Amino acid sequence: MAPKYKVTYFNGMALGEPIRFILSHAGKEFEDIRIDLEQWSTLKKDVPFGKIPTLEVDGKTAHQSVSICRFLGREFGLAGENNWEGLQIDAVVDTIQDLRIAFADFMYAENKTVKAQKKEKLINETLPFYLSRLDEQVEINGGYFVNNKLSWADLYFAAITEYLKGGLEDDFISQYPNLKVLAEKVWNLPRIKAWREKRPKTQL
Amino acid sequence: MAPKYKVTYFNGMALGEPIRFILSHAGKEFEDIRIDLEQWSTLKKDVPFGKIPTLEVDGKTAHQSVSICRFLGREFGLAGENNWEGLQIDAVVDTIQDLRIAFADFMYAENKTVKAQKKEKLINETLPFYLSRLDEQVEINGGYFVNNKLSWADLYFAAITEYLKGGLEDDFISQYPNLKVLAEKVWNLPRIKAWREKRPKTQL
Repeated sequence: MAPKYKVTYFNGMALGEPIRFILSHAGKEFEDIRIDLEQWSTLKKDVPFGKIPTLEVDGKTAHQSVSICRFLGREFGLAGENNWEGLQIDAVVDTIQDLRIAFADFMYAENKTVKAQKKEKLINETLPFYLSRLDEQVEINGGYFVNNKLSWADLYFAAITEYLKGGLEDDFISQYPNLKVLAEKVWNLPRIKAWREKRPKTQL
Repeated sequence: MAPKYKVTYFNGMALGEPIRFILSHAGKEFEDIRIDLEQWSTLKKDVPFGKIPTLEVDGKTAHQSVSICRFLGREFGLAGENNWEGLQIDAVVDTIQDLRIAFADFMYAENKTVKAQKKEKLINETLPFYLSRLDEQVEINGGYFVNNKLSWADLYFAAITEYLKGGLEDDFISQYPNLKVLAEKVWNLPRIKAWREKRPKTQL
């Protein structure tokens, strides 16, 4: 029997969307549970390490979004053909994570002045640093991050890019031609396209 | 022919030590390159994404410390028996990473007042939050993080614990009996013990 998947997250893209992208691209049905803050205050204590997203597979629960994505990538043949290729894919995702953490540090800063300073640094230093290097990597890898073919790193990147665009309210990716083409290529994969059309619309 | 490994990092534990732990425990020889800040200013531009540690395997270079550790864990049979077990191991390491990032946010804060505030929050909230849950996980998994046996998550944890202890100048782990026993068990694995005796001594 096919495994039953259930994704639990807030009603947003952020850390949940890469999981939904990978499941969708693999053509897997999944329960897309979206909780509000009131439900979260009750649920929080029952969730491993008090954090979402979680993935349930046949009733067993896992946490940590990137670990979940890698698990699904391996399930669906998107995690490289050997251990070294798997490492290259993982390193791309960890690099995108470094960028995402810098983004979150800006996005969720409480003090307005501090937030503005963080945004300036993000736009002028952090994004160009990472994105120029990632762009070059895609250029030399045939339009994908690793070894001239689609992997879960590409799906992860395209999902996180939508979230960052929503947070920055800026189409920052358009300055990086190879990344832009890659993101659009992923967004237009038939099952990803169908998912993006039917999913609840959110800014983040 | 056995692969040739070369680890390049600063003269410290931090993000390099988990790699050195895993290679040591697997009984692999490796070149342990430790560079100073002057060398780093020259080397930085030639390194993928301008960051270390890197691992060279037979002349091919990889970056991202956790991705490298996972690769080595898989090479040496320390990454779980199946995909789900691999996910559990990855989720532990990502949780330790969340803690390590909160630690780094304190440790490398430039403003003294801010640093003191961050330290207080780290000691009173962040460390207890993660460590109490990790301690419980070790308790219910037979003295290891996952499935009653040693994995690269245990080695990762023991190496990072030494780094955090050095930074906090506090034996914080002693308040968590299961974690304390696990860390000491790893430190006393014969090849880890031998490595810790022969490695250059550093606080971080």
